[in-house]
Amino acid sequence: MKKIVITGASGFVAGHFIDYLYNNHIECEILGLDIITPKVNFDQYSNLLKIHFSLIDLINQNDVKNVLKSFNPDYILHLAAISSVAYSWKYPSKIFLNNNAIFLNLLDSILDINPSCRIVIVGSSEEYGDVDKTELPIMETRTPNPISPYAISKFSQELMSKIYLKTHNLNLIFTRSFNHIGPRQDNRFVIPSFIQRIVDIKKEGLSEGIIETGDTTIIRDFIDVRDAAKAYHLLLAKGTPGEIYNICSGNAYKLSNLIDFIANEVGVKIITKINPKFIRPTDNKALVGSNIKIATELNWKPIIDIKDTIKDMIAERL
Amino acid sequence: MKKIVITGASGFVAGHFIDYLYNNHIECEILGLDIITPKVNFDQYSNLLKIHFSLIDLINQNDVKNVLKSFNPDYILHLAAISSVAYSWKYPSKIFLNNNAIFLNLLDSILDINPSCRIVIVGSSEEYGDVDKTELPIMETRTPNPISPYAISKFSQELMSKIYLKTHNLNLIFTRSFNHIGPRQDNRFVIPSFIQRIVDIKKEGLSEGIIETGDTTIIRDFIDVRDAAKAYHLLLAKGTPGEIYNICSGNAYKLSNLIDFIANEVGVKIITKINPKFIRPTDNKALVGSNIKIATELNWKPIIDIKDTIKDMIAERL
Repeated sequence: MKKIVITGASGFVAGHFIDYLYNNHIECEILGLDIITPKVNFDQYSNLLKIHFSLIDLINQNDVKNVLKSFNPDYILHLAAISSVAYSWKYPSKIFLNNNAIFLNLLDSILDINPSCRIVIVGSSEEYGDVDKTELPIMETRTPNPISPYAISKFSQELMSKIYLKTHNLNLIFTRSFNHIGPRQDNRFVIPSFIQRIVDIKKEGLSEGIIETGDTTIIRDFIDVRDAAKAYHLLLAKGTPGEIYNICSGNAYKLSNLIDFIANEVGVKIITKINPKFIRPTDNKALVGSNIKIATELNWKPIIDIKDTIKDMIAERL
Repeated sequence: MKKIVITGASGFVAGHFIDYLYNNHIECEILGLDIITPKVNFDQYSNLLKIHFSLIDLINQNDVKNVLKSFNPDYILHLAAISSVAYSWKYPSKIFLNNNAIFLNLLDSILDINPSCRIVIVGSSEEYGDVDKTELPIMETRTPNPISPYAISKFSQELMSKIYLKTHNLNLIFTRSFNHIGPRQDNRFVIPSFIQRIVDIKKEGLSEGIIETGDTTIIRDFIDVRDAAKAYHLLLAKGTPGEIYNICSGNAYKLSNLIDFIANEVGVKIITKINPKFIRPTDNKALVGSNIKIATELNWKPIIDIKDTIKDMIAERL
């Protein structure tokens, strides 16, 4: 029975990762680490999964080392990060130093305790930066050119990992994960925020309304978090050390089209209005990934249609 | 009279920068910041330069902000960094987090106090990474691909600077500085270490000796620190915000040839022996820069011949 540490265990992706293990009867022992208490009651999984949780600030190296030493994991899924791109524009130095410090604490600790422990490091499609339309879908071989603080913090982690791979042969696998969406996602993120506001209009009994947005002409590759969770488990079990994998649907979605779809599903008419405060200083016009590498190597394919994802996200708000 | 802050004021480059100002009768008020006390007595410059010094750990953001606020500089020459590539391989996370934290403290402080303050950020040729011989001499437009912890820490600073340039239009100028050498350089660095050991053999009265080295087939572009000091002053006074400048001689020197030259100058016969502990996990085979950009824009050219540099460095040890 594998022992898995999940950093950022109270977060959106971690919850779905645990669901994936449970739903697929993958027995294992889990140690969740997070700075905030999980909303989920882990007891619901206890007939199959042995889940521990430790409230810990991963910035404290001694705490990280102690907790990893006593659990001695086979795998680590490293999800912990300040992950909001919008927040990162407000506090660039904070997000950069925080995300890098917790990451390096993790590597230094594992180096001391058990260098063969497999770590899947969840990075971001934002690392690619401003990509010309002719380069879509983006392959993992494209040189990153990050243009947001969040993306730079993720790219720095990849760069620093090369050092640990080279000098200590650590067992590290990287993802460049495209936008995850799905049930239970926080309203701070773009799609949940659209859905919440459109559902709110419906709940007020109105047949139409206005929502303020940022740039809705941008194109993103949204992937259902439940498909992503499966990919993370596959990478922990069978990924190739030192390799980078895109986690994406391979589909291009324009935000304005998704708003239209949501409005239609909810049954209200929506007019969008640009609010300059939602416009970021720089933003990637179009980010669409190629998942051919993980599809070929690990036979992973996303199976949930974005329409079903959005329907699920609407349903949980009605 | 300009007010200049120098971070890393107790270091090798800072000392020569102050010498340059003094020797060229450039009157100014200086605040030196460093975590260690300078060896130099700044009183020797007092007829021309008003020099203050503050013993400060730049990792403490409040201290940085307070000291900058009370001095209110026009220019900052940012030299402070753990700069040994060898050390960085031993303590990668430490050098990365330290160098980035002090850099971001500086930017956040200036943003609060006086966003128009010009900052020259001294980066490294090591940021370019492994460069094919056909790409030499390296232009500033070449995409960096850093392969040492020190180089990654420097490159991350450039990436993060883009954020501050974009959102706050800070007055930042970057260098990619190739290996500086000159009088008073610490024996931890490669050329001073060769010279010291060869001079020691001479002083022992021997006519020949063996020195242990790393890979002496690597090629570097050495530039006299006194020429570099002039470039830093030119960039503070007249550089273009947001731009990156190579600071280099443009000349390719193979380490083994420099050892031969030193041995010949000192008057002993030297045999070199590879010691594996001096071999780095990865190393750039050849780094030679082009200084055409700063030469064209600011009319800067190095004027000190490396042979004279080395003679000066031998003389101070005899």
